[in-house]
Amino acid sequence: MARLTDGAASVGLVEPRLAHYGQPITLQCKATLPCFDLVYETYGELNAARSNAVLICHALSGDHHAAGYHSVDDAKPGWWENCIGPGKPIDTAKFFVVALNNLGGCNGSTGPLSLNPATGEPWGESFPAVTVKDWVMTQAMLADTLGIDRFAAVIGGSLGGMQALQWAIDYPRRLAHAVVIAAAPKLSAQNIAFNEIARQAIQADPDFLGGRYFEAATKPRKGLMLARMVGHVTYLSDDGMGVKFGRELKSGDLRSAQDVQFQVESYLHYQGTAFSERFDANTYLLMTRALDYFDPALECGGDLVKAFSNVAARFLVLSFTSDWRFAPERSDEIVDALIAARKDVVSATIEARNGHDSFLLPNERYFDVLGGYLDSVAQREASA
Amino acid sequence: MARLTDGAASVGLVEPRLAHYGQPITLQCKATLPCFDLVYETYGELNAARSNAVLICHALSGDHHAAGYHSVDDAKPGWWENCIGPGKPIDTAKFFVVALNNLGGCNGSTGPLSLNPATGEPWGESFPAVTVKDWVMTQAMLADTLGIDRFAAVIGGSLGGMQALQWAIDYPRRLAHAVVIAAAPKLSAQNIAFNEIARQAIQADPDFLGGRYFEAATKPRKGLMLARMVGHVTYLSDDGMGVKFGRELKSGDLRSAQDVQFQVESYLHYQGTAFSERFDANTYLLMTRALDYFDPALECGGDLVKAFSNVAARFLVLSFTSDWRFAPERSDEIVDALIAARKDVVSATIEARNGHDSFLLPNERYFDVLGGYLDSVAQREASA
Repeated sequence: MARLTDGAASVGLVEPRLAHYGQPITLQCKATLPCFDLVYETYGELNAARSNAVLICHALSGDHHAAGYHSVDDAKPGWWENCIGPGKPIDTAKFFVVALNNLGGCNGSTGPLSLNPATGEPWGESFPAVTVKDWVMTQAMLADTLGIDRFAAVIGGSLGGMQALQWAIDYPRRLAHAVVIAAAPKLSAQNIAFNEIARQAIQADPDFLGGRYFEAATKPRKGLMLARMVGHVTYLSDDGMGVKFGRELKSGDLRSAQDVQFQVESYLHYQGTAFSERFDANTYLLMTRALDYFDPALECGGDLVKAFSNVAARFLVLSFTSDWRFAPERSDEIVDALIAARKDVVSATIEARNGHDSFLLPNERYFDVLGGYLDSVAQREASA
Repeated sequence: MARLTDGAASVGLVEPRLAHYGQPITLQCKATLPCFDLVYETYGELNAARSNAVLICHALSGDHHAAGYHSVDDAKPGWWENCIGPGKPIDTAKFFVVALNNLGGCNGSTGPLSLNPATGEPWGESFPAVTVKDWVMTQAMLADTLGIDRFAAVIGGSLGGMQALQWAIDYPRRLAHAVVIAAAPKLSAQNIAFNEIARQAIQADPDFLGGRYFEAATKPRKGLMLARMVGHVTYLSDDGMGVKFGRELKSGDLRSAQDVQFQVESYLHYQGTAFSERFDANTYLLMTRALDYFDPALECGGDLVKAFSNVAARFLVLSFTSDWRFAPERSDEIVDALIAARKDVVSATIEARNGHDSFLLPNERYFDVLGGYLDSVAQREASA
């Protein structure tokens, strides 16, 4: 089953919607948010039994715009267009797909750029720390709003996969399947160190202004660019970068130490600069902190098997050979703990050379495994 | 043969010396330096035949102070104290050890902090680009000054190993052995990308002032700290960091996104801050550029075997299992090319968990292999 059909249909024009929650919620950090909004999109149709909904959880820099186009002039579709749509692995002909921007985000949901009702000023750096557990709780509130009692699947890659994992632990009866892609049960010291470098780069930028940059109508562009460059290098594999850039010089001569010279450098500059324009620095700090804190086994004294004891969902766990940020061994930890907890799990390690980024890129075996698994989910739900 | 004896003797008090070169030299970038100084130290005694000298080439942030103490109050000895001294792997009872600060450095040799005779001002960012080839050329000039026609061995780790490699290519008759530790025949795109992030961090610091920070009596401390943090994370292995720091929190609670929280973060801050005080930013830019440019096969159309065709030195090539910056496979490339060029090479991959940093740390098998090899070098030179 070749799912890499270039001409595959898109979900087409889509429109973000806003869900408003007027009641205060208490976050894991004990702070209270008086109210909040979640921006989301849906693709496909919810069936009469309301049993075909799947939730897409985004990673560090993602948002609710996972597929389709916002206007006919859009240069780019949603971030997972290659995977979500009619006939695609996450098949909108079968599933009602829900994608949202997480709490604390910067693309429409309540976050550091939003006004704090208590002050009338943007929250900025004072926005409370949010965790994966908080995201899952607010995603469950969105499910209530949409009349979805139980998701056929909760799906995510990287930080998104951690949300799928947390869903299975926190709401065992509200999802049938958890699809955990390129994730880990918790970050390693190295992962945390790279995140900390990114945070330091942002905070060291003089335009960060202690997180109140918006008051001066500026933003820490250089810091965000550096943060993204660090992220980018760790998302890609050494081999993948070699294939893409080799050691090609942009200029063949020795120049002074301040010039851009290798292709890979100019690519990273470009990517970093584009990111710094579209992303909010306080959100980046908050998202990387949520990543660092994620450790669902902590409440069970570090015992992941015990953390999984009440899980009822079936799992698909996928990893990629060249991913060194969340290596296949980290996925194995999840799989091993699920097996030890006597849960139902299918797993695969996909041969791919694009490192951690592989979870976002088309790959025949990846799409066959994911699409095949979700086909069986659809059949199971239809016959339930 | 256990060489890890805690009570092993030190070379004791040592004094740096300065060699001045008053004639202009032309660098690989075609720029001319009107004159320059090299600061160096020596340990042990040069024998009557002048045949027992070994040259130590330093890595990115090293210098001429490789062993011993500058005063009785010194808190720390030279950077390779565990490896150089009487009875140590680089045995000063057998060898006359020469260590220098490379051209472009910031610890006494001519570099960006030195005055440009043409302007009377520090060179700063206008110091010409230097390459590994330039370093080897100036090291050969230092050998002339010391009356050393031929080194028994040229030894270096990381960027230092690249210098040993270049020595064997450029001066085949001036060294008997090349000891290349934790190196690579050239950098990968990923290596270059990490260096570029470090450079961007320095240049984005408002105190960098286009490289003229010294005129304002300041320095880009935050940029240098970030650069060092990036370096540090890539020098260590994921496992090694895990063992050292795990995910230990400095504070157990969720705090705001701006606090230092994990042990690993506070370690990196400390290391980065200390480095930013002792190292010059322009030198860091220049050293990383030299690393990026290193590619001795380039002149031979990318054919490393051909680049080695005139090599006469015997090689010892060492790598470390957990080193992902210059992985054992990169050392294998050197070994394979030497074998294909029908050269004499001994190699070993040392089981070690400290990543690239392993080349600086005591390790029984590492010291046995290195010490054993150098013992045979000493015997060979004595019987020659």
